[in-house]
Amino acid sequence: MASYTIGVDFGTLSGRALLADTATGAEVSHAAMDYPHGVMSRCLPDGTALGLDWALQHPQDYLDVMATVIPAVLAESGVSPDEVRGIAVDCTASTFFPVRRDGTPLCFLPEYAGNPHAWPKLWKHHAPQDKANRLTELALARKEPWLPLYGGRVSSEWQLPKVWETLDSAPEIYDAADFFVEAADWITWMLCGNPAKASSIAGYKGFWRRSGGYPSPEWYRAVDPRLADYVPEKLGYPMADPGERVGRLTAAMAAQTGLREGIAVAAASIDAHVTLPAAAIDRPGAMLAIMGTSTCHLLLGERETAVPGICGVAQGGIYPGWHGYEAGQSCVGDHFAWFIDNCLPAAYRGEAEQSGQGIHALLREKARRLAPGESGLLALDWWNGNRSVLVDVDLTGLFLGMTLQTRPEELYRALIEATAFGTRKIIENFRDGGLTVTEFVAAGGISRKDPLTMQIYADVIGLPVHIAGSVQGPALGSAIYAAVAAGLYPDILAAARAMGRLEKTVYRPIPEHCRVYDRLYAEYDRLHEYFGRGENDVMKRLKSIRREAGLERKQQI
Amino acid sequence: MASYTIGVDFGTLSGRALLADTATGAEVSHAAMDYPHGVMSRCLPDGTALGLDWALQHPQDYLDVMATVIPAVLAESGVSPDEVRGIAVDCTASTFFPVRRDGTPLCFLPEYAGNPHAWPKLWKHHAPQDKANRLTELALARKEPWLPLYGGRVSSEWQLPKVWETLDSAPEIYDAADFFVEAADWITWMLCGNPAKASSIAGYKGFWRRSGGYPSPEWYRAVDPRLADYVPEKLGYPMADPGERVGRLTAAMAAQTGLREGIAVAAASIDAHVTLPAAAIDRPGAMLAIMGTSTCHLLLGERETAVPGICGVAQGGIYPGWHGYEAGQSCVGDHFAWFIDNCLPAAYRGEAEQSGQGIHALLREKARRLAPGESGLLALDWWNGNRSVLVDVDLTGLFLGMTLQTRPEELYRALIEATAFGTRKIIENFRDGGLTVTEFVAAGGISRKDPLTMQIYADVIGLPVHIAGSVQGPALGSAIYAAVAAGLYPDILAAARAMGRLEKTVYRPIPEHCRVYDRLYAEYDRLHEYFGRGENDVMKRLKSIRREAGLERKQQI
Repeated sequence: MASYTIGVDFGTLSGRALLADTATGAEVSHAAMDYPHGVMSRCLPDGTALGLDWALQHPQDYLDVMATVIPAVLAESGVSPDEVRGIAVDCTASTFFPVRRDGTPLCFLPEYAGNPHAWPKLWKHHAPQDKANRLTELALARKEPWLPLYGGRVSSEWQLPKVWETLDSAPEIYDAADFFVEAADWITWMLCGNPAKASSIAGYKGFWRRSGGYPSPEWYRAVDPRLADYVPEKLGYPMADPGERVGRLTAAMAAQTGLREGIAVAAASIDAHVTLPAAAIDRPGAMLAIMGTSTCHLLLGERETAVPGICGVAQGGIYPGWHGYEAGQSCVGDHFAWFIDNCLPAAYRGEAEQSGQGIHALLREKARRLAPGESGLLALDWWNGNRSVLVDVDLTGLFLGMTLQTRPEELYRALIEATAFGTRKIIENFRDGGLTVTEFVAAGGISRKDPLTMQIYADVIGLPVHIAGSVQGPALGSAIYAAVAAGLYPDILAAARAMGRLEKTVYRPIPEHCRVYDRLYAEYDRLHEYFGRGENDVMKRLKSIRREAGLERKQQI
Repeated sequence: MASYTIGVDFGTLSGRALLADTATGAEVSHAAMDYPHGVMSRCLPDGTALGLDWALQHPQDYLDVMATVIPAVLAESGVSPDEVRGIAVDCTASTFFPVRRDGTPLCFLPEYAGNPHAWPKLWKHHAPQDKANRLTELALARKEPWLPLYGGRVSSEWQLPKVWETLDSAPEIYDAADFFVEAADWITWMLCGNPAKASSIAGYKGFWRRSGGYPSPEWYRAVDPRLADYVPEKLGYPMADPGERVGRLTAAMAAQTGLREGIAVAAASIDAHVTLPAAAIDRPGAMLAIMGTSTCHLLLGERETAVPGICGVAQGGIYPGWHGYEAGQSCVGDHFAWFIDNCLPAAYRGEAEQSGQGIHALLREKARRLAPGESGLLALDWWNGNRSVLVDVDLTGLFLGMTLQTRPEELYRALIEATAFGTRKIIENFRDGGLTVTEFVAAGGISRKDPLTMQIYADVIGLPVHIAGSVQGPALGSAIYAAVAAGLYPDILAAARAMGRLEKTVYRPIPEHCRVYDRLYAEYDRLHEYFGRGENDVMKRLKSIRREAGLERKQQI
């Protein structure tokens, strides 16, 4: 009998399910749905206004997605529910919120629904940046042993800044919460009826280490005495490893989705990380770059080492046995979108309309005709700060080399090249930290739609660029974890080798391009160090002048 | 009886005449005409192809302009030719060409008309850049005493590189030339029938000094033995000072123009310089900035001092008795035009069309709403290299501080601010050189059309910005020189005080803006030094990579 599993991937704006053949990983059917509430950044459903840099989600959206997309993939595939053996979920992280002991989100309760802190704080809820900064200072001062594993800096995108913000601003919410839970873990809980913390998410977003567990109670007490019992109390439910079966599908959820009661439910994952098995990556040294509005870099290593400026490393965080390293670029596709919105001349838009091409396609076509180095331009890809290796949100973008002959496609190509240089910097930083990077696999929209960018990456990093085989990388990855949890494979590696895959297309470095890009990268690197490491903090000073100017204007109004 | 004079201003693309009342400087009438041949940069009239960076003009265009615009101003004014007492001409410089002893341009002779070197080489004929570089090296090696007065570097826009190029590439033209002549001097010659070298043009463009004359014969011999007799032979006609009468209008020219035979013809001037009397500037310390596609800065000083990085200084070069200093910015209005052509999004163009505004007006309106420092941006205004104070054509532009929130009007305002910082740098460079700059007057299109830019300049330089009173600054300046040559004033100062004028509008520095701009200027200055003085020559290296890339592409084709 054929067997299938379902992976459900919860992104920032939508969720999607994929039904995969567990023998081959073939994608039988898939369905997606936008979240009805999207990202709430201005107000709650009841109209309560939100502050600057807030970003919330609605848990009901997650439930609605499941009740819609799972029946849809079943119907479309024609597969019998009897043949579906397991299900797994991945989601953005840290997307974190307070719940009752029975799993009810506090925001579902009328008495808390008007309090912003009762809602899931999405990964990009950056409001507690000051908390994150304070945590970094404190951890440095206390020489906390876990800090170096997270690149030496606490991100506002992680769990503790979000919880501390809640405790500080809405202690009644903190007190009313029996648990705090990641969205991925909560959805999994809703599927199987019992809570579990995915060790991968706890590892990357909650400072949990396989050797050592969570930070010490003294640390939490030093942050805030009221946090002394945070871990035993608010995270007081079991841990589960990647590929582990955390439970079985409940009757209620079976009724809602059309699946069979009792099938395996796997531990949850971080959306980016689960792309690794989908791309059949089964060895240290192969870097996976998931390229979208931003880029997430994942790398398996054989040992644990503190690499400065990375996002984190967790033992067994992705596959058991190896250390999963994560780094990132804050702004990749977002650069290109900014350029289109703010710099693309009217004439080009007209040309694209006349030729029936998209704007990006037109620009790429023009940029493709340029030789490496021909524009004379260089950019620093910091329009949204630098996530790795400088880990500094106050850095900003730079264009250098313009003349009166500079054309839009040259600026556009310089932005592409800048993101490639940023990736090379991350690779070299891992190498400097003692890890090997010998292969490069790209996933995500850009990897499939943009051959020019992929060729530039190959030429800049000097490695062949392989492309992940699935359009739905995270959902396929979750289906792979589900197959492991269902007992169809002995471990994730075996499942990844059978069900994951790459495209046939490979972008190979062109030696004469590499030679030019080596020279351009040397220039990038020098500016990266000059502006990024304190020799000239002009970007920070401009930001501070900018904040003062904005403040003065507000006072005038 | 009322009396009038006519000033004729020959620009890069057109010529214009102004008829002015000699008592008040009131502009009675004016007329303009585009050159039929414009700037010849691709081929000669007979189809002979021109090389890269060539820029020639047609002497017949100068004659056609006079035969058209002088009768036109007479007719429009209703003034009787009996009341017109003098005429003077100004032109771009160095615009230089070979002629026969009788004034016939070699390009008018059939045997030479097909040779590009027989034609007037326009100021922006940059083909002999290698010659200019070689002259700089040689003058440095020989410690030529005149070099420091020209900012320490020879520009390809001056006389000697152009002549040396002719000698090298077309010795038959060099030999056939009885004289080489500036366009302004040649037009004046055509008016009065006898040749004269304006000492101002010889001073700024030909290395002539009031104390010391031209460089030594040894210098010319060191450049090229065939140039040993260049000065006595090819420049063997008299010198004339500003405001001096060099002759009287010929009968033939009177017939062509409708003016009276015998009226005073004044020594010629450089177009930018003659704006000084038109703006009633009569004292050291007042800087005049003529702002168009590029900016020319003029300053009177009481003594001669070698200021590094300026374009030149000449004793009595503008007014007798004082030293006239010149500096410049290669790219001002050109920056803004580049931005419109290459970076303005389609949506803004649509908005401008809907509101019936011009694009620049729309952007200025949006940029005006920003407080100084609010954009967080900083630019280096080097899209066309740096003329002063670095004197380096290989420097290129820089934008720094972009975020995903950066809007087009912020980039546009940053470009305006960058040109203002560049002007402040020039002012501070003069001050460092021991000169005083206590007043600032702006002339040219931007000064009258763009209050935002003028306010930013006032705020950045910390001085009130006055605006020259005439739209036709150079032509009015020439009319003032003509009045002096006609004996209506004892000297240029008296004429300038009577006939020159400023607008009533004054842009005064706003103290709180100055405080922010002082901080931004410190950042500009630091980047100016870092990228401009060799600490990081990334711009030059990118240009060299760019040249190689361009070369490789050509080889492939």
